[in-house]
Amino acid sequence: MELYADRGFENTTVAEIAERAGLTERTFFRHYADKREVLFGGAGELQDALVSAVSEVPDSAAPLDAVATGLESVGSWLEEQRGREYASRRQRIINANTELQERELIKFASLSAALADILRKRGTGEPAASLTAEVGIAAFKVAFERWIRRSNRRNLPELIRDSLDELRAVAVSR
Amino acid sequence: MELYADRGFENTTVAEIAERAGLTERTFFRHYADKREVLFGGAGELQDALVSAVSEVPDSAAPLDAVATGLESVGSWLEEQRGREYASRRQRIINANTELQERELIKFASLSAALADILRKRGTGEPAASLTAEVGIAAFKVAFERWIRRSNRRNLPELIRDSLDELRAVAVSR
Repeated sequence: MELYADRGFENTTVAEIAERAGLTERTFFRHYADKREVLFGGAGELQDALVSAVSEVPDSAAPLDAVATGLESVGSWLEEQRGREYASRRQRIINANTELQERELIKFASLSAALADILRKRGTGEPAASLTAEVGIAAFKVAFERWIRRSNRRNLPELIRDSLDELRAVAVSR
Repeated sequence: MELYADRGFENTTVAEIAERAGLTERTFFRHYADKREVLFGGAGELQDALVSAVSEVPDSAAPLDAVATGLESVGSWLEEQRGREYASRRQRIINANTELQERELIKFASLSAALADILRKRGTGEPAASLTAEVGIAAFKVAFERWIRRSNRRNLPELIRDSLDELRAVAVSR
């Protein structure tokens, strides 16, 4: 990721990344489908963590509350394992490249599909499951953007809670 | 679009599309940045229609109600100008190709950003503007998917209204 930050994503070759990491190109491609994946390697892990956190919430909880619990737990994980500095540098690289932005949107869509799936397994019908998943991800995105902003001093789980409260307020105001 | 439906998006060349449309390749590229754009040519128009519909809603209306009005008007336009059959064939082509799905996600993200922008101009603060835009688009997506399903017999504006009602219900249940 340092190479991407220094030279830009477009100007960094797989050969250079592999060299910096002490790998051959061949080993690199055993770990990553392409050089975009370096920035999204944690996405599968994050998705599994989210799904498992939601599935542990008692069935009596409302769907959006179950999603809130899952997102906050993923938020704590990101806060502790990655940290704000890392996330913010990574985001600057992504924002500078359309291909990476597309990949990021795909990851969010896949996160939302996985959430809807686990909600259906908990007994939520459609379209409620898909809608709950989509609004949960929307709240997460907004919280994440606020989290990585330089002026922000609050932690991610707190911002996720805020974002979900704001979302509820927006939905009921007429 | 017929060519994409018959042969698959990957197996159709720009030369073939241009020939079918009675254009030279050069003229084709004057109209479309690449062959993906053939399927997304109406996106700019749709976005303008949405923004202008929302900006005509009186400022006294709640943000999500303004978004609802805009989405329903875009829904009527899609229903009348494109129709369910066209939309459903187009979606099958998109669902069969990852590149096209990425492009579609980009268009939705841009629609959401344009919505948030017009809401801020109407006086909605952040994060409420971004959240309202995201949940509006989420409701639209879910309604659109139901609309193009073979078994569905209801019209798009009606499905959008339903989807937004369902979203409000999901947001308040605890």
